[in-house]
Amino acid sequence: MTFRHNTTPQEDGFRMPGEFEQHRGCWMCWPERSDNWRLGAKPAQSAFTAVAEAINESEPVTVAVSPAQFNNARGRLSGSIRVVEMSYDDSWMRDVGPSFVVNDAGDMRAVDWDFNAWGGHYNGLYYPWDKDALVALKVAEIEGTDRYRSHFVLEGGSIHVDGEGTLITTEECLLSPGRNPDKTKEEIEDGLKKYLNLEKVLWVPRGVHLDETTGHVDNLLHYCAPGVVALTWTDDTSDRQYERSVEAYEYLCGVTDAKGRSLTIHKIHQPGPLFLTAEEAEGIDLTESGMDRAEGDRLAGSYCNFYIGNDRIVFPLLDESRDESAKQKLQEIFPDKKIVGIPGREILLGGGNIHCITQQVPK
Amino acid sequence: MTFRHNTTPQEDGFRMPGEFEQHRGCWMCWPERSDNWRLGAKPAQSAFTAVAEAINESEPVTVAVSPAQFNNARGRLSGSIRVVEMSYDDSWMRDVGPSFVVNDAGDMRAVDWDFNAWGGHYNGLYYPWDKDALVALKVAEIEGTDRYRSHFVLEGGSIHVDGEGTLITTEECLLSPGRNPDKTKEEIEDGLKKYLNLEKVLWVPRGVHLDETTGHVDNLLHYCAPGVVALTWTDDTSDRQYERSVEAYEYLCGVTDAKGRSLTIHKIHQPGPLFLTAEEAEGIDLTESGMDRAEGDRLAGSYCNFYIGNDRIVFPLLDESRDESAKQKLQEIFPDKKIVGIPGREILLGGGNIHCITQQVPK
Repeated sequence: MTFRHNTTPQEDGFRMPGEFEQHRGCWMCWPERSDNWRLGAKPAQSAFTAVAEAINESEPVTVAVSPAQFNNARGRLSGSIRVVEMSYDDSWMRDVGPSFVVNDAGDMRAVDWDFNAWGGHYNGLYYPWDKDALVALKVAEIEGTDRYRSHFVLEGGSIHVDGEGTLITTEECLLSPGRNPDKTKEEIEDGLKKYLNLEKVLWVPRGVHLDETTGHVDNLLHYCAPGVVALTWTDDTSDRQYERSVEAYEYLCGVTDAKGRSLTIHKIHQPGPLFLTAEEAEGIDLTESGMDRAEGDRLAGSYCNFYIGNDRIVFPLLDESRDESAKQKLQEIFPDKKIVGIPGREILLGGGNIHCITQQVPK
Repeated sequence: MTFRHNTTPQEDGFRMPGEFEQHRGCWMCWPERSDNWRLGAKPAQSAFTAVAEAINESEPVTVAVSPAQFNNARGRLSGSIRVVEMSYDDSWMRDVGPSFVVNDAGDMRAVDWDFNAWGGHYNGLYYPWDKDALVALKVAEIEGTDRYRSHFVLEGGSIHVDGEGTLITTEECLLSPGRNPDKTKEEIEDGLKKYLNLEKVLWVPRGVHLDETTGHVDNLLHYCAPGVVALTWTDDTSDRQYERSVEAYEYLCGVTDAKGRSLTIHKIHQPGPLFLTAEEAEGIDLTESGMDRAEGDRLAGSYCNFYIGNDRIVFPLLDESRDESAKQKLQEIFPDKKIVGIPGREILLGGGNIHCITQQVPK
């Protein structure tokens, strides 16, 4: 691979495609750390495996796994899933993996952001994060792509793009003092535009209530197609999520994208609210990390945290009373795709969901 | 990848090509263990880097490196060399990597042998070797090839093939009690034939004097083309190597290959003899491994331990008084290839040379 330090994707004519464009594959990491994943991560490994198998039916999946868990992952995953050794601090490929950009000639390159565990020493979730910080480079090496090194703290889950010049993020996240405190909003917007080849950045105020990523946009909403967004919602005006969803809805109703289009917004009612049980809390190693995992803690559950595969949507099943309506809504938004629900609670217990643990490689 | 447990390459029509056939690339490992490589492996890392760069000019090189050394290797190797994380016990890709086999349709598969550190608990060189034992699988995963799992102890350096049905090995190595003591010579020959698709196995009696691999054939000789072998030689009748080279020469003069051809044998005079210096011995960590590294130890140096790249031979420079004649001999054997000498002493100090640290991926 070649390191591209002196130019940006925008200068070189590379853009980040929308997740709804076709993929050549998908990367995931294997969950392992027992201070985040209960019962030695075994329930999470089952959930991740089910997600990997579901996506692998539609596009080739590669799972990165530490040396300690290599045999276990290789044994549990189907032979057609590629398993590669890689060290990491936790297993959020969306946030630690590269953002892939492509040009019109069909070339692909990787954007490698700075990673600081969702807030560094300000409000990051664990320390150290040095292994996570190398994952994007290591993925790019195996994919054989050139790499842009951006000295800009960003996780893949804090952005959504339409592939046509528009990016949606949240002010809560990208303007957090834990990310790029020395940069102004304009400088951050400028960096996003240069590295993802954008014309317009849309700034939703806040993400999902109690999301420990400081408001990642990918738990709040999903870009489903150019001009089309799915937004997590609640009808319960007393729910702390209500004002956040209303605020996002009103903001998105009032803006246009890079092409001048108004946005169509599909509301998907949230699950629950969901709370950590005593049994679930009991299964997690005690630790001094920033991850709070106590009985009764509210979980930041959202159906919008799904993955758009080549022929399917893989979304988390989180609440029996809401799963079916979420599925129907997704089928309305994606009439040509198969809608596949995978039990997602064990992923949610770790602090995210299906979108957070996946990273597509564009065609 | 698919695991092929129930068939063999021979049944499926796959054969191991000769090293002199064209490659799609080459794999290496990064040297690291300080009880084998002096001065924290830094001189060896320079030597391996020079080998990787020389081969990479002719075919794409991938270097597998542990997490601890990832940044160092990535920084020292050119950007066009692919660097991937992989754990290992030492850095002999020839011996721990897979043997690749191909069919006439252009498909490739990997043969994954058992590995026991050149002799297991009988006379192996270190313990444990569990990380080494997974390298072949991990390489196959990244290459995306199906894998045959052979429950047969074998290192890639203990065999040479002509790609046309003939294999050369040594009795000293493959009949050693440290490899497959429960198998007869006929059973071993049968296993080789099935997994590499052979018709004839040639059994040279012994390898190079004091070779700690128990006589690997790849330090003694090299298959240069079908019917053509380079053999390490000495004119010094008092040298302990003399009888071994004569014995091999006489054996090879008396046999025919799978196609019924007699062999043309090119003698390449050995370097030295070479001995470990006090300074070299001093730089190695004290250990309880089976690797003896004491001042005055004779080193098993051989110019036949070279790599055949797509357009070049990469061979070790080991003795100023012999290097040039070795180079001329190689140029005679390979008139169409560039002959590239790389300082090889630091590799030799670890127990092998350029062929031992490389593994070709056939076209």
